[in-house]
Amino acid sequence: VVSLAKGLERESLKRMSEVVQDELPGHPVAVLTGPNLAREVLAGQPAASVVAIDDTIIATELQRIFATMRLRVYTNPDLVGCEVAGVVKNVIAIASGMAEGMGFGDNTRATLITRGLAEMSRLGVSLGGEPLTFAGLAGMGDLIATCSSRQSRNNTVGFELGKGRSIDEIVGEMHMVAEGVKSCASVLALAEAHGIDMPITEQVVEVCHHGRTVGEALTALMQRDAKPELAP
Amino acid sequence: VVSLAKGLERESLKRMSEVVQDELPGHPVAVLTGPNLAREVLAGQPAASVVAIDDTIIATELQRIFATMRLRVYTNPDLVGCEVAGVVKNVIAIASGMAEGMGFGDNTRATLITRGLAEMSRLGVSLGGEPLTFAGLAGMGDLIATCSSRQSRNNTVGFELGKGRSIDEIVGEMHMVAEGVKSCASVLALAEAHGIDMPITEQVVEVCHHGRTVGEALTALMQRDAKPELAP
Repeated sequence: VVSLAKGLERESLKRMSEVVQDELPGHPVAVLTGPNLAREVLAGQPAASVVAIDDTIIATELQRIFATMRLRVYTNPDLVGCEVAGVVKNVIAIASGMAEGMGFGDNTRATLITRGLAEMSRLGVSLGGEPLTFAGLAGMGDLIATCSSRQSRNNTVGFELGKGRSIDEIVGEMHMVAEGVKSCASVLALAEAHGIDMPITEQVVEVCHHGRTVGEALTALMQRDAKPELAP
Repeated sequence: VVSLAKGLERESLKRMSEVVQDELPGHPVAVLTGPNLAREVLAGQPAASVVAIDDTIIATELQRIFATMRLRVYTNPDLVGCEVAGVVKNVIAIASGMAEGMGFGDNTRATLITRGLAEMSRLGVSLGGEPLTFAGLAGMGDLIATCSSRQSRNNTVGFELGKGRSIDEIVGEMHMVAEGVKSCASVLALAEAHGIDMPITEQVVEVCHHGRTVGEALTALMQRDAKPELAP
């Protein structure tokens, strides 16, 4: 089974591959992920994907099946890291969209992506993922694409929030689901259960679910204590 | 001395802090870097910087001096990694600009940034840098900002190359230097001296200095053998 779903089961906080394994026991599960905005892949633009499964034979076979002249496929045995990355990136994309909606530019977005990756990595590593996965296509690659594209529904929700609109109004108008609006609360619950600090996710939850304004969220992020960059 | 210069001395291939140490012996040297497009910092937009020096007392003092309510300053003892990141990001920004000039979108750019970071990290680690620096603000943070912004001269040179114009014509029209056009050759020389594979840098050198077309460069990148993502 190749999973393309990105999320956490509510209540149980299970990853999608765990849900698949519960439902279809005995079938090996791989994850296909990476910076793959569908419209651009369909248009034949050059891109790269990651097939994640801890079985070299299956990984190599899936690589062979999916690769084309326009789509490079890399293998990665770290399924946990790839799945955590896929969930958290939608939350960070909301934050990045907010900053853009507030009128901020490339420094702010690059900073949110970078610090967002730091908190994504902290969570993923605490769950058993590999640090280097987050520096790869499933981690920063997908995060950058999602945070840069108005094709991302999560980024779009953030953008509208940044312009000062309410979450109910924005979600009420959308025809498709922006997963990050729901999954941010699950991600934060998982982080709290593992004692992981996720300040950006926390502010996204505050804005999406507790009525905090984007201005208050930004101030909360900028007023944190100064730190060494690589602090755990 | 706080160095803001990003480059390698030609011939010697020394980093800027090494040049400062040669010229001003006995003065500790720090590097200030990160996703800091000047215009946005001046406009008071939220951003973050890195002060790199392997001396906690000086680092903390510089952090205190530079930090404002709108600029978070992180410290990082890894001066080598921060400097290598600063040089290589200008080269990758040319590649990213090329892709955009050729009409490609967010997947392609995210992929180039991610794989660009992979080769930047390989070089930096081989020179003694810390892997995690490249996942931070001086590495991916600055890389993302530079590869996303038309304020970056290197990105702009790449964009014009991607549209099919010649390097001589583009450079002849610019009033300011795009460092990556020169430094790509130094970066490649350094990589070759250390046995490091830098396929994107190699193609930038081919296009900027050996008359290869952007289409040929792209084809060369996409036709490489399929690999595990985390291969050294």
